[in-house]
Amino acid sequence: MPGIALPFDADHLDQLMTDAGIDLVLATSKHNVQYLLGGYRFFFFAAMEAIGLSRYLSVVGYPRNRPASGFYVGNPMEGWQQKAEPLWTPTILNEAKTADAAAEVAAGRIRKLGLANGTIAVEMPFLPAEAYLKLEQLLPHSRLVDAVVLLEELRAVKRPGELQIIREASEGIVASMLATFGRARPGISTRELADILRSEETGRGLVFDYCLAATGSSFDRAPSNAEWVSGGTLSLDSGGTQRGYVGDLARMAVIGEPTSEMRQALAEVDAIQQAARSAVRSGQPGRQIYDAIHALWKNLTHPEQFEFEAHGIGLVSHEVPHLVDHGSWPYPGTHRDLALQAGMVLSIETTLRNPVLGFVKLEDTVVVTDAACDVYGDSARGWNVVGV
Amino acid sequence: MPGIALPFDADHLDQLMTDAGIDLVLATSKHNVQYLLGGYRFFFFAAMEAIGLSRYLSVVGYPRNRPASGFYVGNPMEGWQQKAEPLWTPTILNEAKTADAAAEVAAGRIRKLGLANGTIAVEMPFLPAEAYLKLEQLLPHSRLVDAVVLLEELRAVKRPGELQIIREASEGIVASMLATFGRARPGISTRELADILRSEETGRGLVFDYCLAATGSSFDRAPSNAEWVSGGTLSLDSGGTQRGYVGDLARMAVIGEPTSEMRQALAEVDAIQQAARSAVRSGQPGRQIYDAIHALWKNLTHPEQFEFEAHGIGLVSHEVPHLVDHGSWPYPGTHRDLALQAGMVLSIETTLRNPVLGFVKLEDTVVVTDAACDVYGDSARGWNVVGV
Repeated sequence: MPGIALPFDADHLDQLMTDAGIDLVLATSKHNVQYLLGGYRFFFFAAMEAIGLSRYLSVVGYPRNRPASGFYVGNPMEGWQQKAEPLWTPTILNEAKTADAAAEVAAGRIRKLGLANGTIAVEMPFLPAEAYLKLEQLLPHSRLVDAVVLLEELRAVKRPGELQIIREASEGIVASMLATFGRARPGISTRELADILRSEETGRGLVFDYCLAATGSSFDRAPSNAEWVSGGTLSLDSGGTQRGYVGDLARMAVIGEPTSEMRQALAEVDAIQQAARSAVRSGQPGRQIYDAIHALWKNLTHPEQFEFEAHGIGLVSHEVPHLVDHGSWPYPGTHRDLALQAGMVLSIETTLRNPVLGFVKLEDTVVVTDAACDVYGDSARGWNVVGV
Repeated sequence: MPGIALPFDADHLDQLMTDAGIDLVLATSKHNVQYLLGGYRFFFFAAMEAIGLSRYLSVVGYPRNRPASGFYVGNPMEGWQQKAEPLWTPTILNEAKTADAAAEVAAGRIRKLGLANGTIAVEMPFLPAEAYLKLEQLLPHSRLVDAVVLLEELRAVKRPGELQIIREASEGIVASMLATFGRARPGISTRELADILRSEETGRGLVFDYCLAATGSSFDRAPSNAEWVSGGTLSLDSGGTQRGYVGDLARMAVIGEPTSEMRQALAEVDAIQQAARSAVRSGQPGRQIYDAIHALWKNLTHPEQFEFEAHGIGLVSHEVPHLVDHGSWPYPGTHRDLALQAGMVLSIETTLRNPVLGFVKLEDTVVVTDAACDVYGDSARGWNVVGV
């Protein structure tokens, strides 16, 4: 489309919409609005959403094959940011203070585009009921269908700029964990550790999402008063976002030197992780990752204590490609037999639940490349030793 | 109700439900779930919500006059946290991985309670369409109405524990602003300032929501490359939450000594703020705050450059009591003529947009007490001077 530089693969989106019989996509989740706008997320409502008697809701409308008719519905305060970060949508309607109003403005636009009788894909999990009901009321002859799977497919292969952000997110989380280990002292609680990690991630420009932390022989990973004591293991597993993209990694630490049992346990976890990444190859089905690690299973000391998972990651933790072998909604295995493509990003995780050693886990960010794979934040994967 | 200690005023809720003809409240927003559970918020999804092909949704169900039949629907991972933070709801169903599943579990419970034909209040802005449609499908004879105003009324008067958290939030934001001024150097951008503030708030245990920052003569408050230069003014206005409760304050700074024009401008802004707080009194209508400041208006140097607002604040920024005199949905003036009550919390804000001095603003957190009012974070309200 001359004159409009789109930040996503419009041909791909048009094709997905044609295949699904969709006339217009109406994105309302933070992640898909950001994706369709090439990174834009209104800063005022980046974290919170409730205000007054409703909530912030922004909308991107994309009519099939008609980027020149693309539109954005935002809040009256967004003009400031849009001056510095211009949007590609030719129509910008910063007129909505509520979810209801956003739906009304969008419906008006859809009418003007002649699509009031069309099939409109909305994000059922991310469209508030008040906005859904308003669309139904104002567009009674439209058909509202779910856009989640379609938009996820569009996001499956990451562009170089996205990969760079995911690299920063992954490296930032590992660096934050190392800094957290460095600030820990015997007797520190997992709640304090989670607070330190949050602060370290924030200091590196990440938005902290969560910290799972288990210590001693417990498999309980909620931050709590549980103390990390001398000789005890610690598992940190944290998600945080860099400009919306999720980094999600897990690393291990111990106060004092690790025992030989600890070394062997983590070596076994690592062996599974290495086998998994060696099976990541563009053009090959994702199922091969599971085939590769299942071949190792019989050699494990306690196979029944291990758990393995590989899943796509990006603007959403657990997204396309969906590879789990025990998959069920909302984490299906729908992409197991499809070829991996360069630019897809996987989170690969192996967990050992050992009654003596506790919770031992590694989680890595593995990017499919033409050659094989690239691993982001690929350090500190052994026992990180904290002084007694 | 013997045996169940409820963290909210159940009599009040029962009365509100009776008045509105509601049989069951189904809360699904983060703020109302937390409120009805006395502070509980599942840590893993405290910040993010999207996962897999749907999103996290937790539900609190409260049938009128029947706390013993109250229920909670959560995610399978929540058991860890609930062990440490027991919920009052006699029924806990940690079974839902999606919004759709949460609605299904809730609908099953509602049937069991014999309320399938009842009037059910849901949060229309905070109930995803997929959950709404599931309720409609599984409870076709129920009547789904909006719970927002009712739950807001329930939250209007804060308990001492809530006030303590709001005090921490307010003081934390002011302390973070002072630290940010202290770390600033001439030429720093408003984006860098916002990043520092975010880090300072995080370090104080707050969850950063946003920073509005204007410098020089600009009224544009989006953090940007705009530089804060010697002799220039800076307005910081930030929202952040402490355990879910919003602190939202604004303070001023200047690099070098403020000019007499600056002093006069901020003194006028402060005079309005002081007049407003002196009109805050339990038992008197909130309208009196506006009456008090309007009496000052004629003495201002440039009255047309001033803007004033007082609004309730708590788990939601801009909540009950709604006092604005130019009010419209979602920020109505519905409580202007009702008596203020001890324990209500107001955010009071005065803005001056001066073409030379730029954006000059103070925003304070004012708590209605039996005697008059209490002000949280009530410091650093003059020109905070940063060295040249």
